[in-house]
Amino acid sequence: MAYKATKFLDTQPSVIASAAVGGKMESEGPLGEYFDKINEDPYLSSDTYEQGESQLQKQAVIHCLQKVGLKGSDIDVLFGGDLLNQCVGTTYGVRSFGIPFLGLYAACSTMSEGLMLASLFVDRGISDRTMAVTSSHFCTAERQYRFPLGYGGQRPPTSQWTVTAGGALIVGEHGGPPYVRACTVGKIVDMGVSDANNMGAAMAPAAFTTVKTFFDDTGMAPSDFDCIVTGDLGKVGSRVLCELMQREGIDISHNHKDCGLMMYHLQQQDVHSGASGCGCAGSTLCGYFIPKLRSGEFRNILFSATGALMSPTVSQQGESIPSISHLVWLSSETTV
Amino acid sequence: MAYKATKFLDTQPSVIASAAVGGKMESEGPLGEYFDKINEDPYLSSDTYEQGESQLQKQAVIHCLQKVGLKGSDIDVLFGGDLLNQCVGTTYGVRSFGIPFLGLYAACSTMSEGLMLASLFVDRGISDRTMAVTSSHFCTAERQYRFPLGYGGQRPPTSQWTVTAGGALIVGEHGGPPYVRACTVGKIVDMGVSDANNMGAAMAPAAFTTVKTFFDDTGMAPSDFDCIVTGDLGKVGSRVLCELMQREGIDISHNHKDCGLMMYHLQQQDVHSGASGCGCAGSTLCGYFIPKLRSGEFRNILFSATGALMSPTVSQQGESIPSISHLVWLSSETTV
Repeated sequence: MAYKATKFLDTQPSVIASAAVGGKMESEGPLGEYFDKINEDPYLSSDTYEQGESQLQKQAVIHCLQKVGLKGSDIDVLFGGDLLNQCVGTTYGVRSFGIPFLGLYAACSTMSEGLMLASLFVDRGISDRTMAVTSSHFCTAERQYRFPLGYGGQRPPTSQWTVTAGGALIVGEHGGPPYVRACTVGKIVDMGVSDANNMGAAMAPAAFTTVKTFFDDTGMAPSDFDCIVTGDLGKVGSRVLCELMQREGIDISHNHKDCGLMMYHLQQQDVHSGASGCGCAGSTLCGYFIPKLRSGEFRNILFSATGALMSPTVSQQGESIPSISHLVWLSSETTV
Repeated sequence: MAYKATKFLDTQPSVIASAAVGGKMESEGPLGEYFDKINEDPYLSSDTYEQGESQLQKQAVIHCLQKVGLKGSDIDVLFGGDLLNQCVGTTYGVRSFGIPFLGLYAACSTMSEGLMLASLFVDRGISDRTMAVTSSHFCTAERQYRFPLGYGGQRPPTSQWTVTAGGALIVGEHGGPPYVRACTVGKIVDMGVSDANNMGAAMAPAAFTTVKTFFDDTGMAPSDFDCIVTGDLGKVGSRVLCELMQREGIDISHNHKDCGLMMYHLQQQDVHSGASGCGCAGSTLCGYFIPKLRSGEFRNILFSATGALMSPTVSQQGESIPSISHLVWLSSETTV
């Protein structure tokens, strides 16, 4: 039997809580009402933007715990990561909770990897209750990946705007919808795109590979899902993904949603090709999709966040951008 | 029942293969003979040090697969990470294999986290065969964390030397010793040490917390193990760890081994407080300890690699150094 990257979760564990926190610009976008907390101050009352990003994770964890009346000590393992060098958004954000911690690096696909591992740990009896968290911050990402903020560099039309937001969720054995039904571990895909201002195009083949693998492994089709959610391909990457799928005879154009296209009013908020950052897919899943799966407004979604795995150092050395996408199937219904 | 961070592996999966590759300086140290391949050229025939580090991971994976006659397509999931910004040592090193990939960030404790997850995936039937890989490189770490190499900065006596090495291992259901018996997920511990040139002192409390948790959870004692292996505390951190344990009435001074003290001839090779880097514990486990567990020379070891989770950015902002240590119990014997 050939190996299948797709794993079904025998017990179909629940996402028992989720929370999303954001910044001012996120509050002014189409998803503004779905955040649990908005921070007008980009420093979040800290001394530096990096400490501010850590606050986003701390807030997301606290809001998430509070919703179900839990404490940090009720969580068995916390999975987390972010875009910052050495994932300091996460480590400084969660260090005070004292929760056993497993650090991840998956760039903007971190919430997919975190949700996947958190769900597998509960499903396979490794843990009773797990948590996943991630964040991104426009000001930390901009100066780390591109230019000092004060420089005021021009942004090309294919560029995306890093979301200032955090998302956290808790997975447990029992807790009602949404249920985690299956997941697909992504492969690193590198089609040779080397323009760090066009990450949507670099990441689209990774999303294509993972979503197609899921359909091949399960025999399911796009019509089985209310939404096939990617993050964060933006305008350019979303078009590339739909075209790649179309070539394989799979039409996702009607139910494809990209978190990078949902977060902002593209024209009015001047974000060019859309949004990006771990916090984009992370907060959109935790603030928008999970509550709508819980209420039954959505019945089934595929969540396949995408990550670009380059660094500024290797980009400047002329390297292309390897990308990855991990997929999780979430459902309002359980069959077990 | 209180939650225990320590997990027993019901099936006690095997580490069916491991490989270690190193650089010139590592070949001249006490562990020189245990490497599968030595690279005299710090660039590993690449254009940049970063590409060279990626070659270390590629080599480690290839050597490991070859030892058991497997191909990349025989591996269900690969867990990997390293110290470089955005973990590019790993992503560029393994992208050509096409193995489903889950990225980790745990600084120098990456091999512990990778081995733990690789073992749990096999033990709980998520995957048939998994792999973990990591690396570090003196030249990439030095310029990222400290100064350009040409600057020739003085190194304080507490500083450690980043190992140029890679390590990889494969976990499977059946394959003889060593067997993975239990693991303990670490917590982030931050005792306020902010000297980035004294990471051993920063990390020792994390190792202490995890090793003590393992003894508390299992009721076992230091005398049950041939070696209690940490990495990479160096001279300063090892002394701190033994003292912290001693205060709790636990004497590990006779069987404590630190990978950071094993890699080099400290005096002759002028490495001050010892060695460090993901590749230090990674290659010492894969090249030295696993073969000696397979041969029966060692019967039981605890492997508790330690990671310092700061970045240069937040260190320069005055932040202290949060640390973590994940533990795996490896045995030459299985009880199932």
